[in-house]
Amino acid sequence: MSDLSLTRLPALEISRRVAAREIAPTAVVQAHLAAIALHNPKLNAVVTAMTDDALAQAQALEARLAQGAPVGLLAGVPVGIKDTHPTKGVRTTYGSPLMKDHVPDDDALIVERARAADAILIGKTNVPEFAYGANTVNAVFGATRNPWNTALSAAGSTGGGAAGLVAGMFALATGSDLGGSLRLPAAFCGTVGLRPSAGLVPMVPNAQPWNPLSVDGPMARRTADLALMLQAVAGPDPREPHLVPVAGRDFVAAATGAVRQGLRVAYCPDIARIGVDPEVERVCREAALRLRDLGCVVEEIDLDLSIGRKAFAQLRGQFVLNGGLDMLDKVDRLGANYAGNLRFALAQSPRDVALGERGRTEILMRMVALFERYDRLLTPCAPVPPFPVEQNYPETIAGRKMESYIDWAAPTFCLSLTGLPVASVPAGLDRSGLPVGLQVVGPRWNEEGVLALCAAIERVAPLPEPPLSV
Amino acid sequence: MSDLSLTRLPALEISRRVAAREIAPTAVVQAHLAAIALHNPKLNAVVTAMTDDALAQAQALEARLAQGAPVGLLAGVPVGIKDTHPTKGVRTTYGSPLMKDHVPDDDALIVERARAADAILIGKTNVPEFAYGANTVNAVFGATRNPWNTALSAAGSTGGGAAGLVAGMFALATGSDLGGSLRLPAAFCGTVGLRPSAGLVPMVPNAQPWNPLSVDGPMARRTADLALMLQAVAGPDPREPHLVPVAGRDFVAAATGAVRQGLRVAYCPDIARIGVDPEVERVCREAALRLRDLGCVVEEIDLDLSIGRKAFAQLRGQFVLNGGLDMLDKVDRLGANYAGNLRFALAQSPRDVALGERGRTEILMRMVALFERYDRLLTPCAPVPPFPVEQNYPETIAGRKMESYIDWAAPTFCLSLTGLPVASVPAGLDRSGLPVGLQVVGPRWNEEGVLALCAAIERVAPLPEPPLSV
Repeated sequence: MSDLSLTRLPALEISRRVAAREIAPTAVVQAHLAAIALHNPKLNAVVTAMTDDALAQAQALEARLAQGAPVGLLAGVPVGIKDTHPTKGVRTTYGSPLMKDHVPDDDALIVERARAADAILIGKTNVPEFAYGANTVNAVFGATRNPWNTALSAAGSTGGGAAGLVAGMFALATGSDLGGSLRLPAAFCGTVGLRPSAGLVPMVPNAQPWNPLSVDGPMARRTADLALMLQAVAGPDPREPHLVPVAGRDFVAAATGAVRQGLRVAYCPDIARIGVDPEVERVCREAALRLRDLGCVVEEIDLDLSIGRKAFAQLRGQFVLNGGLDMLDKVDRLGANYAGNLRFALAQSPRDVALGERGRTEILMRMVALFERYDRLLTPCAPVPPFPVEQNYPETIAGRKMESYIDWAAPTFCLSLTGLPVASVPAGLDRSGLPVGLQVVGPRWNEEGVLALCAAIERVAPLPEPPLSV
Repeated sequence: MSDLSLTRLPALEISRRVAAREIAPTAVVQAHLAAIALHNPKLNAVVTAMTDDALAQAQALEARLAQGAPVGLLAGVPVGIKDTHPTKGVRTTYGSPLMKDHVPDDDALIVERARAADAILIGKTNVPEFAYGANTVNAVFGATRNPWNTALSAAGSTGGGAAGLVAGMFALATGSDLGGSLRLPAAFCGTVGLRPSAGLVPMVPNAQPWNPLSVDGPMARRTADLALMLQAVAGPDPREPHLVPVAGRDFVAAATGAVRQGLRVAYCPDIARIGVDPEVERVCREAALRLRDLGCVVEEIDLDLSIGRKAFAQLRGQFVLNGGLDMLDKVDRLGANYAGNLRFALAQSPRDVALGERGRTEILMRMVALFERYDRLLTPCAPVPPFPVEQNYPETIAGRKMESYIDWAAPTFCLSLTGLPVASVPAGLDRSGLPVGLQVVGPRWNEEGVLALCAAIERVAPLPEPPLSV
């Protein structure tokens, strides 16, 4: 019998105990495989379990430990790999019928680095097709469900990663974030997702490495675990043209230390002018204000990044086209989101793209001005509570009708345009018992500052364990 | 009477002697103003002399020196400011009739930093309209001429800066480089121009800070002087989203130290497959091979970046449009280069831009592979010797007809696509007594490596003084 309590351990604990030979990697893996067997039929978070492979990895690690060999930062920690991250020899579908039998020859760099740090790759996690979508559903595997209420969405695109973390299927997950794909699932499922500065976690392979709009990053149940994974997968690579140095940086120390006294924290309820559910806003505001107990100076501010709604659509259009040139003759075989994005991109003029660039520049300048007065920005992540899993997107926010299917993600995608490090961390539960995510934004390249404040929010607004039913 | 010998001093010498109070800043400025008075009527390098302003700056510096105040890295060094770099209170025309009376309220950041380092801003240097062009000529001020032969072009767009340096009008110059604007004038005039990694010298103001295609940078007569200026103007700024750290870096030390024994140097005569003038190629090859005397391993290689010719046109189109949205209603009042660029950009489809991005990605991967085998790449800069100043571009290279006016700049603009640090350094004189420039490319973010090899080339192929006639 597997000891499911191992699936509630923080990644930091697992790696420490594995390295100290207090627990066996095979026991850790068996427990997490048991959690997959138990919860996945309802959640559909893992689409390709790597059962034999994971056990083989654990056994190899055990053999090395027995020889007294040094082990990596993620020793024995089960990791869920987003199904848009290629895994050598393991089916990687991108959630697309076009790729349903695809088996890559190489790992993505984030996978390669997790492996090199002695993590155990335990399964591929569900995504919307090619990660284009904020609800995790596709024609190959269907929908991922929210572990807090399986009638509801886990959001997307890292929805499989978020749901699997909550259910103890793995202790860390890889993700990526174009418009909020590491943050919206974190908000809906009650995990922590970090969108790092472009280049901190080099994206390889990447059809457009010069474009900083999409980034790879880590997700975890707790900030300190996320920091551990970030430490393992961050660092320059010659194939990544954006440089963010890591020498001398200690993300775990940042995530486990105290928050600086007098830290100037700005809270803005609605940066995208899209509206926000009153209950979501209440939970976020209360968590923000509770930071005063830790010595932060918290002020509500008015920050208008709504020009980002149009700018993001314009820049995302070109982004999707840059990465999708080989799909142009297959648009009819793609799902509605990706096909729609491509058609939108082809219908744009170069002037539209230029206007998007202008909007992004204006947003950059507003954020520069903001960070002259404040050290961090807090703002709600998803502006609505989790919606029914059958819906592609929420049709209204606080009674206001959305103009497009992407509108509701404006609070996250407007921040993607800034290029700043931004995380979503649980701020508490709403009256329905569903998790609410709060975004934490730091100044440029200051992941440590974001992690420290996420950890502080965890302390003032601890999230209860999810009511996992089987 | 001014002592014109002061105008032949290296910037490093000027700053050292000024700081030591061995020479007076006013004497330095008067000498350089005398050189402007003497040579500018023929060369037209300086379009707005800052005579009174420069003397006032020198007097203020003198007063501070008299009080024993500490002074900056560029103490008393006269600097020519490219007329596309805004200067507070000093006319900045961008070489355009539309801007001929424009007086900015603020300095560009590169200007502000030069000022803060106690440089003396002595004049604005000529450019093609908005720096779009590889010959320095515009409807406001006319053409800049080559100091080695005034019938010939100084190239562009930093042509005024290059010609003025050679004539001793200033000891350092600011420049910028989209497709070769810091390198082609350096090649034609016999100066050193460095295109740094995007972000090392933050560009402020910038209509599209996220786009790394155009960068600001320094130009000088000698590498060590260029390194001094780079040290003064480099370093992060929150308005610049590309990070290149400078803490602990010493560019002057790199430019004055020895080249590493066994350095693996690749030489490629024609990366863009555009052809190269045999005499230009001979001078470049001989300089490259002479590096063996310093212990370098020099190998000729075949590197094909010719896909960059189309990719650069496509990406430059979008770049020009991004920066030129406010010009769309004035296209008929712009010169042929800028107007042509805008019309080209408007006629492109988003798919063309995506194809450009794909080409750039392919080039990145080829450079990554190259730098696994070699430490540096050498390749000729301008593929032709300086052409008559009346021509907009050379019509043939080695007998081969060019398809477009930009084709001849392919050896520089194909390297712009790599984002790598790249300089042009004099490789010697051709049989006509005209300077030839050799490009030095380093691995990502390794400006020190580029500077060290430039300095080595100066040692093995020293350039004689130009035959300045008055």
